[in-house]
Amino acid sequence: MIIFERLVILGVGLMGGSLALAAKQAGAVKTVVGWSRTDATLQAALASGVIDEAQSDLSLALAAADCVVVATPTILAESVMQQALEQVPATTAVTDVASVKGNIAKSLTQAFGSIPTNAILGHPIAGSERSGVAAAQADLYQHHRVILINQTSNGQATDARLLSKVGQLWQAVGAHVSEMSIADHDRILALTSHLPHFLAYAIVAQLTAEDESLDVFNFAAGGLRDFTRIASSEPRMWREILLANKSELNHALDGFERHVSHLRSLLAADDGQGLEDIFTDVRRSRNDFVASLAARIDQDKL
Amino acid sequence: MIIFERLVILGVGLMGGSLALAAKQAGAVKTVVGWSRTDATLQAALASGVIDEAQSDLSLALAAADCVVVATPTILAESVMQQALEQVPATTAVTDVASVKGNIAKSLTQAFGSIPTNAILGHPIAGSERSGVAAAQADLYQHHRVILINQTSNGQATDARLLSKVGQLWQAVGAHVSEMSIADHDRILALTSHLPHFLAYAIVAQLTAEDESLDVFNFAAGGLRDFTRIASSEPRMWREILLANKSELNHALDGFERHVSHLRSLLAADDGQGLEDIFTDVRRSRNDFVASLAARIDQDKL
Repeated sequence: MIIFERLVILGVGLMGGSLALAAKQAGAVKTVVGWSRTDATLQAALASGVIDEAQSDLSLALAAADCVVVATPTILAESVMQQALEQVPATTAVTDVASVKGNIAKSLTQAFGSIPTNAILGHPIAGSERSGVAAAQADLYQHHRVILINQTSNGQATDARLLSKVGQLWQAVGAHVSEMSIADHDRILALTSHLPHFLAYAIVAQLTAEDESLDVFNFAAGGLRDFTRIASSEPRMWREILLANKSELNHALDGFERHVSHLRSLLAADDGQGLEDIFTDVRRSRNDFVASLAARIDQDKL
Repeated sequence: MIIFERLVILGVGLMGGSLALAAKQAGAVKTVVGWSRTDATLQAALASGVIDEAQSDLSLALAAADCVVVATPTILAESVMQQALEQVPATTAVTDVASVKGNIAKSLTQAFGSIPTNAILGHPIAGSERSGVAAAQADLYQHHRVILINQTSNGQATDARLLSKVGQLWQAVGAHVSEMSIADHDRILALTSHLPHFLAYAIVAQLTAEDESLDVFNFAAGGLRDFTRIASSEPRMWREILLANKSELNHALDGFERHVSHLRSLLAADDGQGLEDIFTDVRRSRNDFVASLAARIDQDKL
């Protein structure tokens, strides 16, 4: 079923390219138009069939679009989204895939007074350590969560018809759609993603500093490899994400430090039972989380 | 080649059972004697061929041993090791597999004035989320590091012949042996293992506390699953390990908090370049660590 006639992808990398590929395979779109600042990217996307038309001029790319997906790097997303919203009619959905929503909401509010109701802010919780259009894969979003924002900055509801159609597009590519407010999105992602990345970077920084005298990495094993996997994430991208969600990340860090402090006080008091009780609750929570994740996504990666 | 005639395993669980199995398969021991407080464990170990003789009386188990391996839970290791050292001659090696060495060293020093030179403290850096003799596997130590302590508490060298023979036993079961001091061992393990476990428990405790209102786990993905894998570790065992290495863990936590604090100050100052520089160094360190780990152990688990 055709959901959008003319889907315009602004920034044809891993995220945008994968959505284009999957939407075409699902028959959810008639034509996919790609725009990029880099001509080589557009040519590669065209050659590999990720997009049907390539446009290096933004205005030409946006003409006659009924859905625009901003999939540029985080740092460009604010201005590209603003330009798109200035140029398309209010009946055209403009959505995005960025990991933080508060900063985009803020810049759109500054530009337009409030977030336009056809701005359907989105965040597919999926990714890969690879990047670029060559890494695009039609199943990237299969079984993954996509969060769509259902309120503008002043609490007004976003355009219900466009919100529903963008949701249908994501469902067509296999994703599970949830709707929530900007504040809840940024709070949840700070806890589940931004804080863990920040901490993983911090601990590897510490180990690196100690490594010269103690050769610590030489005695580390699989537990540390898994614990620090996210510290191999792309530095430029994560610098941008963490700064974009700075306020919620700080809030999450404060909460984390309170939990560390509590555990340290149990340790200082030799309160083994207190520690064990928390560890037991934690293990139960974490095992429940992993079981439900496996039921959703990747059974073989426990 | 027979390294020990009569290897006595005190505590026949995952660690002791795996060493017994592997040593027998490698032809490195003539007879393996198992001792346990639990009769069912001994019968299971005997039935599955992990041990050749079962003894529920410690003195009878120790008779004529030329190597004694203490492989009980951490909380019992100190007293069992002390009893073994009281009963065997100085020509018999008494070694162990516990994750922390400082606490054992301290209790032996209290009991004997200094650590007896035939006490060859050891720590194979290997394990499994499973436990008990039924989980024993001959390849548990294959390609893993084993740290042997080469100094007693007053800086005296441990018995060179016994240190060498215990090292040979570990090499026979496929492990890579390194020698170091008690202080270096406990400092390294605090950084590479105890601190990560402590932090993983802390972050899952925080997420669990927030989960009721925000449903956070429902929006978490593979990154968090890997980051928190070690928070599913056995609560009783980790309570004991963390308390046993409390002083070095506190030191590691202080260092970690300094790194967190530095990253937070860069975040507060919007110093994107400063963050990116650290993340870039961190990614390089972490990737080097993972590559060398893969070259050593499990190629398929990157």
